[in-house]
Amino acid sequence: MVRRQYGPARPGATAGLQGPGRGMDDLTPYVAAAIAAADAAADVIRPFFRAAIPADIKADQSPVTVADRNAELAMRAVLNRLCPECGILGEEYGLERPEARLRWVLDPIDGTRAFITGRPTFGSLVALLDGDSPLVGIIDQPVTRERWIGRADAPTVFAGGLGGAIGTRPCADLAHAELSCTSPEMLGSDMARWQLLAARVRRNYWGGDCYAYGLLALGQIDVIVECDLKPWDWAALLPVVRGAGGMLTDWQGNPPRVEGDGRVIAVGDPALLADVVAVLGP
Amino acid sequence: MVRRQYGPARPGATAGLQGPGRGMDDLTPYVAAAIAAADAAADVIRPFFRAAIPADIKADQSPVTVADRNAELAMRAVLNRLCPECGILGEEYGLERPEARLRWVLDPIDGTRAFITGRPTFGSLVALLDGDSPLVGIIDQPVTRERWIGRADAPTVFAGGLGGAIGTRPCADLAHAELSCTSPEMLGSDMARWQLLAARVRRNYWGGDCYAYGLLALGQIDVIVECDLKPWDWAALLPVVRGAGGMLTDWQGNPPRVEGDGRVIAVGDPALLADVVAVLGP
Repeated sequence: MVRRQYGPARPGATAGLQGPGRGMDDLTPYVAAAIAAADAAADVIRPFFRAAIPADIKADQSPVTVADRNAELAMRAVLNRLCPECGILGEEYGLERPEARLRWVLDPIDGTRAFITGRPTFGSLVALLDGDSPLVGIIDQPVTRERWIGRADAPTVFAGGLGGAIGTRPCADLAHAELSCTSPEMLGSDMARWQLLAARVRRNYWGGDCYAYGLLALGQIDVIVECDLKPWDWAALLPVVRGAGGMLTDWQGNPPRVEGDGRVIAVGDPALLADVVAVLGP
Repeated sequence: MVRRQYGPARPGATAGLQGPGRGMDDLTPYVAAAIAAADAAADVIRPFFRAAIPADIKADQSPVTVADRNAELAMRAVLNRLCPECGILGEEYGLERPEARLRWVLDPIDGTRAFITGRPTFGSLVALLDGDSPLVGIIDQPVTRERWIGRADAPTVFAGGLGGAIGTRPCADLAHAELSCTSPEMLGSDMARWQLLAARVRRNYWGGDCYAYGLLALGQIDVIVECDLKPWDWAALLPVVRGAGGMLTDWQGNPPRVEGDGRVIAVGDPALLADVVAVLGP
Protein backbone atom coordinates (compact mmCIF):
# COMPACT_ATOMS: atom_id res chain seq x y z
CA MET A 1 0.00 0.00 0.00
CA VAL A 2 1.25 3.44 -0.88
CA ARG A 3 0.33 6.44 1.22
CA ARG A 4 0.98 9.94 -0.04
CA GLN A 5 2.34 11.32 3.19
CA TYR A 6 5.38 10.95 5.32
CA GLY A 7 6.36 11.55 8.89
CA PRO A 8 8.89 10.47 11.44
CA ALA A 9 9.14 6.82 12.32
CA ARG A 10 6.95 6.00 15.32
CA PRO A 11 8.24 7.33 18.66
CA GLY A 12 10.85 5.10 20.20
CA ALA A 13 11.69 3.44 16.94
CA THR A 14 15.30 4.51 17.22
CA ALA A 15 15.65 3.74 20.96
CA GLY A 16 18.91 2.03 21.68
CA LEU A 17 20.70 3.68 18.76
CA GLN A 18 23.38 6.10 19.82
CA GLY A 19 24.30 7.38 16.38
CA PRO A 20 24.61 6.48 12.77
CA GLY A 21 25.42 2.83 12.35
CA ARG A 22 25.17 1.94 16.00
CA GLY A 23 22.99 -1.03 16.57
CA MET A 24 23.31 -2.14 12.95
CA ASP A 25 25.68 -5.04 13.23
CA ASP A 26 26.33 -5.18 9.54
CA LEU A 27 25.07 -2.81 6.88
CA THR A 28 26.27 -4.98 4.03
CA PRO A 29 22.89 -6.58 3.21
CA TYR A 30 21.33 -3.12 3.09
CA VAL A 31 24.11 -1.82 0.86
CA ALA A 32 23.51 -4.76 -1.46
CA ALA A 33 19.78 -3.97 -1.56
CA ALA A 34 20.49 -0.30 -2.25
CA ILE A 35 22.78 -1.28 -5.12
CA ALA A 36 20.09 -3.54 -6.55
CA ALA A 37 17.59 -0.67 -6.33
CA ALA A 38 19.99 1.73 -8.07
CA ASP A 39 20.58 -0.87 -10.79
CA ALA A 40 16.82 -1.22 -11.30
CA ALA A 41 16.33 2.55 -11.53
CA ALA A 42 19.21 2.91 -13.99
CA ASP A 43 17.76 0.24 -16.28
CA VAL A 44 14.46 2.12 -16.36
CA ILE A 45 15.94 5.59 -16.82
CA ARG A 46 18.59 4.99 -19.49
CA PRO A 47 16.23 4.40 -22.45
CA PHE A 48 14.37 7.64 -21.62
CA PHE A 49 17.51 9.81 -21.60
CA ARG A 50 17.42 12.27 -24.53
CA ALA A 51 14.25 10.61 -25.76
CA ALA A 52 11.19 12.71 -26.46
CA ILE A 53 9.11 12.23 -23.33
CA PRO A 54 6.70 14.81 -21.94
CA ALA A 55 7.06 16.25 -18.45
CA ASP A 56 4.07 16.86 -16.19
CA ILE A 57 4.07 19.65 -13.63
CA LYS A 58 3.51 18.66 -10.02
CA ALA A 59 1.72 20.67 -7.35
CA ASP A 60 5.06 22.19 -6.29
CA GLN A 61 5.66 23.24 -9.91
CA SER A 62 8.51 20.75 -10.35
CA PRO A 63 8.50 18.55 -13.44
CA VAL A 64 8.04 14.78 -13.39
CA THR A 65 8.20 12.22 -16.19
CA VAL A 66 7.35 8.59 -16.80
CA ALA A 67 11.03 7.88 -16.14
CA ASP A 68 10.78 9.28 -12.59
CA ARG A 69 7.63 7.30 -11.86
CA ASN A 70 8.69 3.99 -13.40
CA ALA A 71 12.15 4.17 -11.81
CA GLU A 72 10.66 4.67 -8.36
CA LEU A 73 8.27 1.76 -8.86
CA ALA A 74 11.19 -0.42 -9.96
CA MET A 75 13.18 0.55 -6.86
CA ARG A 76 10.21 -0.15 -4.60
CA ALA A 77 9.74 -3.60 -6.13
CA VAL A 78 13.38 -4.48 -5.49
CA LEU A 79 13.42 -3.16 -1.93
CA ASN A 80 10.09 -4.76 -0.99
CA ARG A 81 11.52 -8.06 -2.15
CA LEU A 82 14.93 -7.76 -0.48
CA CYS A 83 13.95 -5.84 2.67
CA PRO A 84 10.26 -6.46 3.35
CA GLU A 85 10.67 -5.24 6.93
CA CYS A 86 11.75 -1.72 5.95
CA GLY A 87 9.52 1.26 5.22
CA ILE A 88 9.82 3.16 1.95
CA LEU A 89 9.45 6.88 1.40
CA GLY A 90 9.78 8.09 -2.18
CA GLU A 91 9.39 11.43 -3.91
CA GLU A 92 6.71 10.24 -6.30
CA TYR A 93 4.71 7.58 -4.41
CA GLY A 94 4.75 8.52 -0.75
CA LEU A 95 5.22 6.28 2.30
CA GLU A 96 4.88 2.55 2.78
CA ARG A 97 5.08 0.91 6.23
CA PRO A 98 5.36 4.09 8.33
CA GLU A 99 5.75 1.93 11.44
CA ALA A 100 9.05 0.40 10.33
CA ARG A 101 12.17 1.35 12.24
CA LEU A 102 14.37 1.45 9.12
CA ARG A 103 13.14 3.41 6.14
CA TRP A 104 14.32 3.60 2.55
CA VAL A 105 14.18 7.12 1.17
CA LEU A 106 14.16 7.35 -2.62
CA ASP A 107 14.48 9.98 -5.30
CA PRO A 108 14.34 8.23 -8.67
CA ILE A 109 15.60 11.28 -10.57
CA ASP A 110 17.15 14.09 -8.55
CA GLY A 111 17.58 16.88 -11.07
CA THR A 112 14.61 16.22 -13.32
CA ARG A 113 15.26 19.56 -15.06
CA ALA A 114 18.75 18.36 -15.97
CA PHE A 115 17.34 15.01 -17.07
CA ILE A 116 14.70 16.45 -19.37
CA THR A 117 17.23 18.75 -21.04
CA GLY A 118 19.64 15.89 -21.74
CA ARG A 119 22.33 16.76 -19.19
CA PRO A 120 24.14 13.75 -17.68
CA THR A 121 24.27 15.43 -14.26
CA PHE A 122 21.07 14.20 -12.62
CA GLY A 123 21.09 11.20 -10.31
CA SER A 124 19.08 8.47 -8.66
CA LEU A 125 19.22 8.58 -4.87
CA VAL A 126 18.75 5.65 -2.51
CA ALA A 127 19.10 6.07 1.25
CA LEU A 128 18.39 3.95 4.30
CA LEU A 129 17.43 5.95 7.37
CA ASP A 130 17.15 5.05 11.03
CA GLY A 131 15.05 7.93 12.28
CA ASP A 132 16.92 11.02 11.12
CA SER A 133 20.22 9.18 10.59
CA PRO A 134 21.12 7.93 7.12
CA LEU A 135 22.97 4.61 7.37
CA VAL A 136 23.42 4.02 3.64
CA GLY A 137 23.34 6.39 0.68
CA ILE A 138 23.87 5.91 -3.05
CA ILE A 139 24.19 8.59 -5.74
CA ASP A 140 23.88 6.93 -9.13
CA GLN A 141 24.35 8.57 -12.52
CA PRO A 142 22.90 6.02 -14.91
CA VAL A 143 24.14 7.58 -18.16
CA THR A 144 27.79 8.21 -17.31
CA ARG A 145 27.59 5.10 -15.12
CA GLU A 146 29.13 6.85 -12.15
CA ARG A 147 28.12 5.65 -8.69
CA TRP A 148 28.93 6.82 -5.17
CA ILE A 149 28.18 4.35 -2.36
CA GLY A 150 28.21 5.79 1.15
CA ARG A 151 27.68 3.91 4.39
CA ALA A 152 27.88 4.93 8.02
CA ASP A 153 30.37 2.18 8.88
CA ALA A 154 32.92 2.52 6.07
CA PRO A 155 34.51 4.97 3.62
CA THR A 156 32.60 6.00 0.53
CA VAL A 157 33.28 4.02 -2.63
CA PHE A 158 33.20 5.59 -6.10
CA ALA A 159 33.04 3.78 -9.42
CA GLY A 160 32.97 5.50 -12.76
CA GLY A 161 34.81 5.83 -16.02
CA LEU A 162 35.11 9.61 -16.21
CA GLY A 163 37.90 9.87 -13.65
CA GLY A 164 38.22 11.08 -10.10
CA ALA A 165 38.92 9.44 -6.76
CA ILE A 166 37.10 9.49 -3.45
CA GLY A 167 38.25 11.97 -0.84
CA THR A 168 37.35 15.57 -0.11
CA ARG A 169 40.16 18.08 -0.39
CA PRO A 170 41.62 20.32 2.31
CA CYS A 171 40.23 23.86 2.13
CA ALA A 172 40.11 25.60 5.46
CA ASP A 173 39.83 29.12 4.01
CA LEU A 174 36.58 30.39 2.50
CA ALA A 175 38.55 32.65 0.16
CA HIS A 176 39.86 29.57 -1.65
CA ALA A 177 36.59 27.65 -1.73
CA GLU A 178 34.63 26.56 -4.81
CA LEU A 179 30.93 27.04 -3.98
CA SER A 180 28.05 25.34 -5.77
CA CYS A 181 24.27 25.75 -5.73
CA THR A 182 21.66 24.25 -8.03
CA SER A 183 19.80 27.47 -8.81
CA PRO A 184 19.14 30.98 -7.51
CA GLU A 185 15.42 30.18 -7.60
CA MET A 186 15.76 27.50 -4.89
CA LEU A 187 17.20 30.08 -2.49
CA GLY A 188 14.04 32.19 -2.40
CA SER A 189 14.04 34.51 0.61
CA ASP A 190 17.40 33.09 1.75
CA MET A 191 19.15 34.64 -1.26
CA ALA A 192 20.53 37.56 0.76
CA ARG A 193 22.12 35.22 3.32
CA TRP A 194 23.49 32.99 0.58
CA GLN A 195 25.00 36.01 -1.17
CA LEU A 196 26.90 36.91 1.99
CA LEU A 197 28.63 33.56 1.58
CA ALA A 198 29.07 33.84 -2.19
CA ALA A 199 30.87 37.14 -1.65
CA ARG A 200 33.43 35.40 0.56
CA VAL A 201 34.32 32.40 -1.63
CA ARG A 202 36.52 32.17 -4.69
CA ARG A 203 33.79 31.27 -7.16
CA ASN A 204 30.26 29.87 -7.42
CA TYR A 205 28.88 27.58 -10.11
CA TRP A 206 25.13 27.18 -10.64
CA GLY A 207 23.59 23.80 -11.40
CA GLY A 208 24.39 20.39 -10.10
CA ASP A 209 21.67 18.79 -8.00
CA CYS A 210 22.98 15.63 -6.31
CA TYR A 211 25.87 15.34 -8.77
CA ALA A 212 27.56 18.35 -7.14
CA TYR A 213 27.68 16.47 -3.82
CA GLY A 214 29.35 13.59 -5.61
CA LEU A 215 31.93 16.04 -6.97
CA LEU A 216 32.47 17.42 -3.46
CA ALA A 217 33.18 13.81 -2.37
CA LEU A 218 35.78 13.66 -5.17
CA GLY A 219 37.52 16.80 -3.93
CA GLN A 220 36.32 18.99 -6.83
CA ILE A 221 34.01 21.34 -4.91
CA ASP A 222 34.52 22.70 -1.39
CA VAL A 223 31.13 23.91 -0.24
CA ILE A 224 27.49 23.54 -1.31
CA VAL A 225 24.77 25.61 0.31
CA GLU A 226 21.17 24.98 -0.70
CA CYS A 227 17.58 25.34 0.45
CA ASP A 228 14.27 23.65 0.03
CA LEU A 229 15.71 20.12 0.02
CA LYS A 230 13.34 17.31 0.90
CA PRO A 231 14.52 14.24 2.86
CA TRP A 232 14.81 12.30 -0.41
CA ASP A 233 17.08 15.06 -1.73
CA TRP A 234 19.64 15.03 1.10
CA ALA A 235 19.39 11.63 2.84
CA ALA A 236 21.56 9.72 0.36
CA LEU A 237 24.09 12.55 0.14
CA LEU A 238 25.04 12.51 3.82
CA PRO A 239 26.77 9.10 3.99
CA VAL A 240 28.52 9.79 0.67
CA VAL A 241 29.88 13.13 1.86
CA ARG A 242 30.74 11.97 5.37
CA GLY A 243 32.42 8.78 4.13
CA ALA A 244 34.60 10.90 1.85
CA GLY A 245 35.84 13.11 4.69
CA GLY A 246 33.28 15.93 4.55
CA MET A 247 30.23 17.01 6.52
CA LEU A 248 26.60 17.62 5.66
CA THR A 249 24.49 19.66 8.07
CA ASP A 250 21.67 22.15 8.29
CA TRP A 251 22.45 25.90 8.23
CA GLN A 252 23.15 25.81 12.00
CA GLY A 253 25.79 23.14 11.54
CA ASN A 254 23.62 20.42 13.07
CA PRO A 255 22.68 17.09 11.48
CA PRO A 256 19.76 17.55 9.08
CA ARG A 257 16.42 16.17 10.24
CA VAL A 258 13.61 14.57 8.26
CA GLU A 259 11.29 17.19 9.72
CA GLY A 260 13.88 19.95 9.32
CA ASP A 261 13.69 23.13 7.26
CA GLY A 262 15.39 21.75 4.13
CA ARG A 263 18.43 24.04 4.37
CA VAL A 264 21.66 22.13 3.80
CA ILE A 265 25.39 22.84 3.99
CA ALA A 266 27.97 20.41 2.66
CA VAL A 267 31.66 21.04 3.18
CA GLY A 268 34.57 18.95 1.97
CA ASP A 269 36.87 20.16 4.72
CA PRO A 270 35.16 20.03 8.13
CA ALA A 271 37.34 22.99 9.18
CA LEU A 272 35.25 25.15 6.82
CA LEU A 273 31.92 24.46 8.50
CA ALA A 274 32.10 26.96 11.35
CA ASP A 275 32.91 29.83 8.98
CA VAL A 276 30.08 28.89 6.61
CA VAL A 277 27.60 28.77 9.50
CA ALA A 278 28.88 32.09 10.84
CA VAL A 279 28.65 33.85 7.46
CA LEU A 280 25.15 32.55 6.76
CA GLY A 281 24.11 33.95 10.13
CA PRO A 282 21.09 33.15 12.25
CA MET B 1 54.17 34.68 -33.84
CA VAL B 2 51.36 35.21 -31.37
CA ARG B 3 49.75 38.59 -30.99
CA ARG B 4 47.44 39.28 -28.09
CA GLN B 5 44.79 41.14 -30.01
CA TYR B 6 42.22 40.41 -32.61
CA GLY B 7 40.30 42.34 -35.19
CA PRO B 8 38.42 41.84 -38.39
CA ALA B 9 40.18 40.25 -41.29
CA ARG B 10 41.68 42.91 -43.53
CA PRO B 11 39.08 44.86 -45.55
CA GLY B 12 38.04 43.05 -48.67
CA ALA B 13 39.15 39.69 -47.41
CA THR B 14 35.67 38.28 -47.78
CA ALA B 15 34.94 39.95 -51.13
CA GLY B 16 33.26 37.53 -53.49
CA LEU B 17 31.62 35.51 -50.73
CA GLN B 18 27.86 35.80 -50.66
CA GLY B 19 27.22 33.80 -47.53
CA PRO B 20 28.41 30.92 -45.43
CA GLY B 21 30.06 28.30 -47.52
CA ARG B 22 29.96 30.22 -50.75
CA GLY B 23 33.31 30.31 -52.45
CA MET B 24 34.60 27.33 -50.50
CA ASP B 25 34.46 24.56 -53.04
CA ASP B 26 34.91 21.86 -50.47
CA LEU B 27 35.08 22.25 -46.72
CA THR B 28 36.15 18.67 -46.14
CA PRO B 29 39.89 19.36 -45.68
CA TYR B 30 39.04 22.06 -43.13
CA VAL B 31 36.66 19.73 -41.31
CA ALA B 32 39.44 17.15 -41.15
CA ALA B 33 41.83 19.74 -39.74
CA ALA B 34 39.25 20.84 -37.16
CA ILE B 35 38.76 17.22 -36.09
CA ALA B 36 42.52 16.78 -35.72
CA ALA B 37 42.66 19.92 -33.58
CA ALA B 38 39.79 18.72 -31.38
CA ASP B 39 41.54 15.36 -30.99
CA ALA B 40 44.74 17.10 -29.94
CA ALA B 41 42.91 19.25 -27.38
CA ALA B 42 41.08 16.24 -25.96
CA ASP B 43 44.32 14.32 -25.47
CA VAL B 44 45.75 17.25 -23.52
CA ILE B 45 42.64 17.91 -21.43
CA ARG B 46 41.60 14.40 -20.39
CA PRO B 47 44.44 13.72 -17.92
CA PHE B 48 43.74 17.05 -16.17
CA PHE B 49 40.04 16.32 -15.61
CA ARG B 50 39.32 15.92 -11.89
CA ALA B 51 43.03 16.19 -11.19
CA ALA B 52 44.26 18.72 -8.66
CA ILE B 53 45.39 21.60 -10.86
CA PRO B 54 45.35 25.25 -9.80
CA ALA B 55 43.38 27.88 -11.67
CA ASP B 56 44.76 31.35 -12.32
CA ILE B 57 42.48 34.35 -12.59
CA LYS B 58 42.66 36.36 -15.80
CA ALA B 59 42.17 40.11 -16.20
CA ASP B 60 38.46 39.53 -16.89
CA GLN B 61 38.21 37.54 -13.63
CA SER B 62 37.66 34.25 -15.47
CA PRO B 63 39.73 31.24 -14.44
CA VAL B 64 42.33 29.56 -16.64
CA THR B 65 44.42 26.43 -16.10
CA VAL B 66 47.38 24.66 -17.59
CA ALA B 67 44.83 22.48 -19.40
CA ASP B 68 43.35 25.51 -21.21
CA ARG B 69 46.77 26.79 -22.21
CA ASN B 70 48.30 23.48 -23.28
CA ALA B 71 45.19 22.46 -25.20
CA GLU B 72 45.20 25.69 -27.19
CA LEU B 73 48.90 25.28 -27.97
CA ALA B 74 48.23 21.73 -29.13
CA MET B 75 45.40 22.89 -31.39
CA ARG B 76 47.57 25.69 -32.84
CA ALA B 77 50.35 23.22 -33.63
CA VAL B 78 47.96 20.96 -35.51
CA LEU B 79 46.29 23.78 -37.44
CA ASN B 80 49.57 25.48 -38.33
CA ARG B 81 50.75 22.20 -39.78
CA LEU B 82 47.56 21.32 -41.66
CA CYS B 83 46.41 24.81 -42.68
CA PRO B 84 49.44 27.10 -42.70
CA GLU B 85 47.55 29.65 -44.79
CA CYS B 86 44.83 30.27 -42.18
CA GLY B 87 44.93 32.74 -39.32
CA ILE B 88 44.32 31.58 -35.75
CA LEU B 89 42.50 33.44 -33.00
CA GLY B 90 42.36 31.72 -29.62
CA GLU B 91 41.08 32.68 -26.21
CA GLU B 92 44.41 32.23 -24.46
CA TYR B 93 47.07 33.16 -27.03
CA GLY B 94 45.60 35.85 -29.25
CA LEU B 95 45.86 36.20 -33.03
CA GLU B 96 48.27 34.73 -35.58
CA ARG B 97 48.29 35.83 -39.25
CA PRO B 98 45.65 38.58 -38.99
CA GLU B 99 45.92 39.09 -42.75
CA ALA B 100 44.60 35.62 -43.62
CA ARG B 101 41.17 35.42 -45.24
CA LEU B 102 40.18 32.29 -43.32
CA ARG B 103 40.65 32.25 -39.58
CA TRP B 104 40.48 29.47 -37.02
CA VAL B 105 38.79 30.59 -33.81
CA LEU B 106 39.57 28.44 -30.78
CA ASP B 107 38.38 28.04 -27.22
CA PRO B 108 40.34 25.17 -25.68
CA ILE B 109 37.99 24.88 -22.69
CA ASP B 110 34.65 26.63 -22.91
CA GLY B 111 33.25 26.33 -19.42
CA THR B 112 36.43 26.42 -17.39
CA ARG B 113 34.35 26.75 -14.21
CA ALA B 114 32.62 23.47 -15.06
CA PHE B 115 35.96 21.88 -15.90
CA ILE B 116 37.66 22.86 -12.65
CA THR B 117 34.75 21.53 -10.60
CA GLY B 118 34.79 18.16 -12.35
CA ARG B 119 31.60 18.54 -14.42
CA PRO B 120 31.68 16.77 -17.80
CA THR B 121 29.76 19.62 -19.43
CA PHE B 122 32.54 21.89 -20.66
CA GLY B 123 33.79 21.69 -24.24
CA SER B 124 36.58 22.45 -26.66
CA LEU B 125 35.50 24.70 -29.52
CA VAL B 126 37.06 24.85 -32.98
CA ALA B 127 35.65 27.12 -35.68
CA LEU B 128 36.74 28.26 -39.10
CA LEU B 129 35.54 31.75 -40.02
CA ASP B 130 35.44 33.63 -43.28
CA GLY B 131 35.01 37.16 -42.01
CA ASP B 132 32.01 36.97 -39.69
CA SER B 133 30.71 33.72 -41.18
CA PRO B 134 31.59 30.42 -39.52
CA LEU B 135 32.12 27.71 -42.13
CA VAL B 136 33.02 24.88 -39.76
CA GLY B 137 32.36 24.39 -36.04
CA ILE B 138 33.13 21.60 -33.62
CA ILE B 139 31.91 21.20 -30.04
CA ASP B 140 33.95 18.47 -28.38
CA GLN B 141 33.39 17.02 -24.90
CA PRO B 142 36.62 15.10 -24.27
CA VAL B 143 35.50 13.24 -21.15
CA THR B 144 32.14 11.88 -22.27
CA ARG B 145 33.65 11.69 -25.78
CA GLU B 146 30.70 13.46 -27.34
CA ARG B 147 31.39 15.51 -30.47
CA TRP B 148 29.23 17.76 -32.64
CA ILE B 149 30.60 18.59 -36.10
CA GLY B 150 28.88 21.44 -37.91
CA ARG B 151 29.65 22.73 -41.40
CA ALA B 152 28.01 25.30 -43.60
CA ASP B 153 27.57 22.88 -46.50
CA ALA B 154 26.10 19.83 -44.77
CA PRO B 155 23.99 18.71 -41.79
CA THR B 156 25.56 18.54 -38.36
CA VAL B 157 26.99 15.19 -37.30
CA PHE B 158 26.93 13.99 -33.68
CA ALA B 159 28.92 11.13 -32.20
CA GLY B 160 28.74 10.08 -28.59
CA GLY B 161 27.93 7.19 -26.35
CA LEU B 162 25.45 8.87 -24.00
CA GLY B 163 22.55 8.88 -26.43
CA GLY B 164 20.74 11.44 -28.51
CA ALA B 165 20.40 12.17 -32.22
CA ILE B 166 20.98 15.29 -34.29
CA GLY B 167 18.00 17.47 -35.05
CA THR B 168 16.35 20.34 -33.24
CA ARG B 169 12.75 19.80 -32.20
CA PRO B 170 9.66 21.72 -33.25
CA CYS B 171 8.63 24.31 -30.65
CA ALA B 172 6.88 27.31 -32.12
CA ASP B 173 5.32 28.45 -28.83
CA LEU B 174 7.40 30.16 -26.14
CA ALA B 175 5.10 28.76 -23.47
CA HIS B 176 6.39 25.27 -24.25
CA ALA B 177 10.05 26.18 -24.58
CA GLU B 178 12.93 24.93 -22.42
CA LEU B 179 15.27 27.89 -21.88
CA SER B 180 18.91 27.66 -20.86
CA CYS B 181 21.53 30.18 -19.75
CA THR B 182 24.97 29.57 -18.27
CA SER B 183 24.64 31.93 -15.30
CA PRO B 184 22.72 34.93 -14.03
CA GLU B 185 26.05 36.70 -13.57
CA MET B 186 26.78 36.73 -17.33
CA LEU B 187 23.56 38.65 -17.94
CA GLY B 188 24.67 41.71 -16.00
CA SER B 189 22.57 44.73 -16.90
CA ASP B 190 20.59 42.66 -19.40
CA MET B 191 19.03 40.61 -16.60
CA ALA B 192 15.74 42.53 -16.73
CA ARG B 193 15.34 41.88 -20.46
CA TRP B 194 16.28 38.23 -20.03
CA GLN B 195 13.72 37.87 -17.23
CA LEU B 196 10.97 39.09 -19.55
CA LEU B 197 11.79 36.06 -21.67
CA ALA B 198 12.18 33.67 -18.73
CA ALA B 199 8.68 34.65 -17.59
CA ARG B 200 7.26 33.52 -20.92
CA VAL B 201 8.89 30.09 -21.26
CA ARG B 202 8.07 26.81 -19.57
CA ARG B 203 11.30 26.50 -17.59
CA ASN B 204 14.87 27.73 -17.39
CA TYR B 205 17.93 25.74 -16.40
CA TRP B 206 21.17 27.46 -15.34
CA GLY B 207 24.55 26.15 -16.43
CA GLY B 208 25.69 24.67 -19.65
CA ASP B 209 28.23 26.72 -21.57
CA CYS B 210 28.73 25.28 -25.09
CA TYR B 211 27.29 21.92 -24.05
CA ALA B 212 23.80 23.46 -23.90
CA TYR B 213 24.06 24.41 -27.59
CA GLY B 214 24.95 20.81 -28.35
CA LEU B 215 21.83 19.73 -26.45
CA LEU B 216 19.74 22.22 -28.43
CA ALA B 217 21.11 20.56 -31.58
CA LEU B 218 19.89 17.24 -30.15
CA GLY B 219 16.38 18.60 -29.62
CA GLN B 220 16.67 18.71 -25.82
CA ILE B 221 16.57 22.49 -25.32
CA ASP B 222 14.51 25.03 -27.31
CA VAL B 223 16.11 28.38 -26.67
CA ILE B 224 19.36 29.73 -25.22
CA VAL B 225 19.80 33.44 -24.56
CA GLU B 226 23.16 34.65 -23.32
CA CYS B 227 25.41 37.70 -23.12
CA ASP B 228 29.07 38.54 -23.02
CA LEU B 229 30.08 35.83 -25.49
CA LYS B 230 33.39 36.30 -27.27
CA PRO B 231 33.86 35.15 -30.90
CA TRP B 232 35.57 31.99 -29.66
CA ASP B 233 32.50 31.28 -27.52
CA TRP B 234 29.90 31.43 -30.31
CA ALA B 235 31.71 30.84 -33.61
CA ALA B 236 31.80 27.03 -33.40
CA LEU B 237 28.22 26.88 -32.13
CA LEU B 238 26.64 28.49 -35.18
CA PRO B 239 27.33 25.76 -37.77
CA VAL B 240 26.38 23.08 -35.23
CA VAL B 241 23.04 24.74 -34.45
CA ARG B 242 22.25 25.70 -38.03
CA GLY B 243 23.18 22.28 -39.40
CA ALA B 244 20.78 20.71 -36.89
CA GLY B 245 17.85 22.85 -38.02
CA GLY B 246 18.13 25.78 -35.63
CA MET B 247 19.34 29.37 -35.77
CA LEU B 248 21.94 31.35 -33.89
CA THR B 249 21.75 35.14 -34.00
CA ASP B 250 22.35 38.28 -31.99
CA TRP B 251 19.53 39.75 -29.89
CA GLN B 252 18.15 41.53 -32.96
CA GLY B 253 17.85 38.27 -34.84
CA ASN B 254 20.77 39.08 -37.14
CA PRO B 255 23.87 36.93 -37.72
CA PRO B 256 26.39 37.49 -34.92
CA ARG B 257 29.51 39.46 -35.83
CA VAL B 258 33.08 39.12 -34.62
CA GLU B 259 32.93 42.77 -33.58
CA GLY B 260 29.39 42.42 -32.26
CA ASP B 261 28.09 42.96 -28.73
CA GLY B 262 28.37 39.35 -27.58
CA ARG B 263 24.62 38.86 -27.11
CA VAL B 264 23.45 35.57 -28.58
CA ILE B 265 20.12 33.82 -29.18
CA ALA B 266 19.94 30.20 -30.25
CA VAL B 267 16.61 28.61 -31.13
CA GLY B 268 15.94 25.04 -32.14
CA ASP B 269 12.81 25.95 -34.06
CA PRO B 270 13.37 28.96 -36.34
CA ALA B 271 9.69 29.83 -35.87
CA LEU B 272 10.54 30.81 -32.29
CA LEU B 273 13.10 33.46 -33.20
CA ALA B 274 10.77 36.39 -33.91
CA ASP B 275 9.00 35.97 -30.57
CA VAL B 276 12.28 35.76 -28.66
CA VAL B 277 13.57 38.92 -30.35
CA ALA B 278 10.28 40.70 -29.67
CA VAL B 279 10.19 39.73 -25.98
CA LEU B 280 13.82 40.73 -25.41
CA GLY B 281 12.98 44.13 -26.88
CA PRO B 282 15.27 46.79 -28.27
